[in-house]
Amino acid sequence: MSDINQPWTCPVPSLRHKTVLLGHGSGGKLMHQLIDTVFRPLLLPAELPVLNDAATLEIGDSRVAITTDAFVVSPLVFPGGDIGQLAVNGTINDLAVSGARPLCLSAAFILEEGLPMDALWSLVASMRQTAEAAGVPIVTGDTKVVNRGSADQLFITTTGLGVVDYAGVLSVDAAQPGDVVILNGAIAAHGVAVLLAREDMEFAHPVLSDTAALHTLVAEMLDASPHIRCMRDATRGGLASALNEIAESSHVGITLYEERIPIQDEVRGACEILGLDPLHVANEGKLVAVVARDDAEKVLARMREHPLGRDAAIIGEVSEDARHLVLLRTEIGGLRVVGMLSGEQLPRIC
Amino acid sequence: MSDINQPWTCPVPSLRHKTVLLGHGSGGKLMHQLIDTVFRPLLLPAELPVLNDAATLEIGDSRVAITTDAFVVSPLVFPGGDIGQLAVNGTINDLAVSGARPLCLSAAFILEEGLPMDALWSLVASMRQTAEAAGVPIVTGDTKVVNRGSADQLFITTTGLGVVDYAGVLSVDAAQPGDVVILNGAIAAHGVAVLLAREDMEFAHPVLSDTAALHTLVAEMLDASPHIRCMRDATRGGLASALNEIAESSHVGITLYEERIPIQDEVRGACEILGLDPLHVANEGKLVAVVARDDAEKVLARMREHPLGRDAAIIGEVSEDARHLVLLRTEIGGLRVVGMLSGEQLPRIC
Repeated sequence: MSDINQPWTCPVPSLRHKTVLLGHGSGGKLMHQLIDTVFRPLLLPAELPVLNDAATLEIGDSRVAITTDAFVVSPLVFPGGDIGQLAVNGTINDLAVSGARPLCLSAAFILEEGLPMDALWSLVASMRQTAEAAGVPIVTGDTKVVNRGSADQLFITTTGLGVVDYAGVLSVDAAQPGDVVILNGAIAAHGVAVLLAREDMEFAHPVLSDTAALHTLVAEMLDASPHIRCMRDATRGGLASALNEIAESSHVGITLYEERIPIQDEVRGACEILGLDPLHVANEGKLVAVVARDDAEKVLARMREHPLGRDAAIIGEVSEDARHLVLLRTEIGGLRVVGMLSGEQLPRIC
Repeated sequence: MSDINQPWTCPVPSLRHKTVLLGHGSGGKLMHQLIDTVFRPLLLPAELPVLNDAATLEIGDSRVAITTDAFVVSPLVFPGGDIGQLAVNGTINDLAVSGARPLCLSAAFILEEGLPMDALWSLVASMRQTAEAAGVPIVTGDTKVVNRGSADQLFITTTGLGVVDYAGVLSVDAAQPGDVVILNGAIAAHGVAVLLAREDMEFAHPVLSDTAALHTLVAEMLDASPHIRCMRDATRGGLASALNEIAESSHVGITLYEERIPIQDEVRGACEILGLDPLHVANEGKLVAVVARDDAEKVLARMREHPLGRDAAIIGEVSEDARHLVLLRTEIGGLRVVGMLSGEQLPRIC
């Protein structure tokens, strides 16, 4: 990160790429480089030390969390979901994994001239249905229209507001050696579903996106233990990127056990055919939590009572490691480094 | 507005246009039709009766305001400003005219593959400079990248959070017959500046955008009087659309006095050449306030002490009118109806 006190020296010469690449939006290494070099020194107050999924601020007697996300997924509708559902669930999840109880959302639409009105309507209807099901109302919005060819049908930016009343402190830099890593269910379904829809490929068993609002699951987890160190939803860049962010921010290592990571057979099969590493594929209803070892079984039991945590599992543990690596112990006993996604794997996945 | 209890009946047959048109983003009649038919019944809780610039909710002991805006202005840089300044100032202004003291902003970026990195950097730097000057930090953000041709360089969505502690109640439906209308300065500069930049036209006296953060001006106004009924920033659709929204929501008429509406000579001249009605041209640093008549001079005096209110003037008055018309008494004594902008006048003006 460049010196926050010298933000007016253009850092571009230090960026390897002179133009924006698709990979800069991938959730992986390039995106982190862009954030660290361009966005973080310029946008955030110096006192915000780590990049959590939401920022928090004191308002009156409350600790309020705010988070924002732009959604540009292509195609707009895919097996198991659509851009409207992603926009609502994704922002709710960013609040939830920050330990915030979601209160409301805003939604800003950028529409391309020529978008069929009934397509717009059905996506907006889907958003409302999703927001109502989650109990988190959309309270304000904005609409802009750009000329044909200046956008791809429809982009949605949602911002969420929540209240943090968790007794513990959730932060991506709070993982400690000895902690365990819990995942709430099977990975990689969202990315595979979108990619298959985009390529117009069909398999015998259709793969559905896992898009879901995780805030009620998280509420159970937070209620079960005051010793949850941090949570991340494993979206762009997949499980691997979420865990690398934690390892790096917390200055620890993480070891995963391959056989404990749930994945549907058809998702695994599709990843093999498509040449994707499921650990790098985006999820939209999966979170990882780093939890104090003594509380892990308690948290796990509560998660398994929730429909979105039925397949929850302890998938790894935190250790001391000066290199801050995420390692995978494979089913055949090998050990490999699980890097952050580099370059672009699946652009416009959310 | 369709029945809020029946949101699942697609309203599209009641929309005259089967696809989205540029005019649906203009701030005028078409946009209001789209909001009323598609967005409002679907997104907002039924208990929100009017569309103010921000929504408010109680959090703990505070009344918190939230507002969101997408910015798609073309070109990205224009005389007097750029998209980054607009994104910061515009969202601050939406909070301010809702009576909220701005606390922080979020910013979500949609980048087109191929955007030069130094262009991105200078716009982000401009945002930070604008946010710092306003004393309103940007605390969280998001970045997505779309493939070349799927966006036009760069779109920014900002969301703002503020606290409302005004003793009065500001609402677009609160104007009363007998109130007066106050404007803080000369109109139509922003829209003209962008249009001239887009068309690559130059005049002897350059026209600069009026982009500015109005929150400190508004703070003076709110401090001067507890009887300000409502405020609007006169952006898309111009002064005419802002006043028509007030007239319609408050079920009143408004009469304007043409000779009292400040406008720079070069802006008036450009409007004449370009065939634009300055009352319909977007501003980015102008607000109208409807104020109880007895307090008008007090509010005006305080405004004139502020750099952004030096040319403040009482430009009209509120009357009973069952047709809720905005009328303009012209300099030669005629009276004409000032409608809401219909169709598209200047797409992608903000």
